[in-house]
Amino acid sequence: MITIRPATRRDDEAIWRVLEPTLRAGESYPQPRDISREDAIAYWWKKEHFIFVAEDESGQIVGTYYLKANSTGPAAHVANCGYVALPQAAGRGVGRALCLHSLEEARRRGFRGMQFNLVVATNARALHLWQSCGFEIVGRLPGAFAHPTEGFVDAFVMFRGL
Amino acid sequence: MITIRPATRRDDEAIWRVLEPTLRAGESYPQPRDISREDAIAYWWKKEHFIFVAEDESGQIVGTYYLKANSTGPAAHVANCGYVALPQAAGRGVGRALCLHSLEEARRRGFRGMQFNLVVATNARALHLWQSCGFEIVGRLPGAFAHPTEGFVDAFVMFRGL
Repeated sequence: MITIRPATRRDDEAIWRVLEPTLRAGESYPQPRDISREDAIAYWWKKEHFIFVAEDESGQIVGTYYLKANSTGPAAHVANCGYVALPQAAGRGVGRALCLHSLEEARRRGFRGMQFNLVVATNARALHLWQSCGFEIVGRLPGAFAHPTEGFVDAFVMFRGL
Repeated sequence: MITIRPATRRDDEAIWRVLEPTLRAGESYPQPRDISREDAIAYWWKKEHFIFVAEDESGQIVGTYYLKANSTGPAAHVANCGYVALPQAAGRGVGRALCLHSLEEARRRGFRGMQFNLVVATNARALHLWQSCGFEIVGRLPGAFAHPTEGFVDAFVMFRGL
């Protein structure tokens, strides 16, 4: 059973343990692979981000996501999220739980849609997961992501209404 | 003849005169229509923006653009720009001159592509102008922009390689 709650700054160490393997792999987030703990935490806790964490039965933090407005003014009604789960928790539905929670949270906050700006095309697992959560591919960005082993790969823009 | 040069903070009054009609119209930029001069100038001069201005034969500033990296880390090789021309200068090729200049500038700085994230679908003039400058529609965002008279309208993602 995964429980999702708003994060506090006391969760920073656990959030970093979740983020580190994904950011070090450099295959999905537009952050430098050698990002410091401090910069990663600052990126996650940007002032416009709402941060949530997912805890498993034992109270261990196994995932986190941010929710924010994707743009401003007349485009501020579309939300954006980023999700990271602990690699050891793969297959336990953490990513899906985070995404479904974020859709509900975004709806509650009055957003009318959610957009992912850069779903790396080689990240088939994420792509299928977001599709199974109701997202559609609405765009394809040629060579938009420098993958550490695959070189320049395409990225998808994904969208769903709320 | 349009001349394009890097802007300085001494151009702020002229830049505001260029930005104001477009931002007040609220039909193309994701900024609130009632944005203050101060906020508009701060938005244009964000620390990651390179700012240029276009002068006509008489030395009047008739357009401006920003150039920046559209993302960070492994996606920092794609540029993004925003262009605004003085409405009174319409039909004089200011927008095209700004765009062609920005493509050259982006190439010079080592960017590999340029992406526009939110080309409002009702803005047919901009759409055709960017297409004539080599951009392609690579995505469509449903209802992503709250137009002041048309309601929620789609927006395009546009891209070109460099």
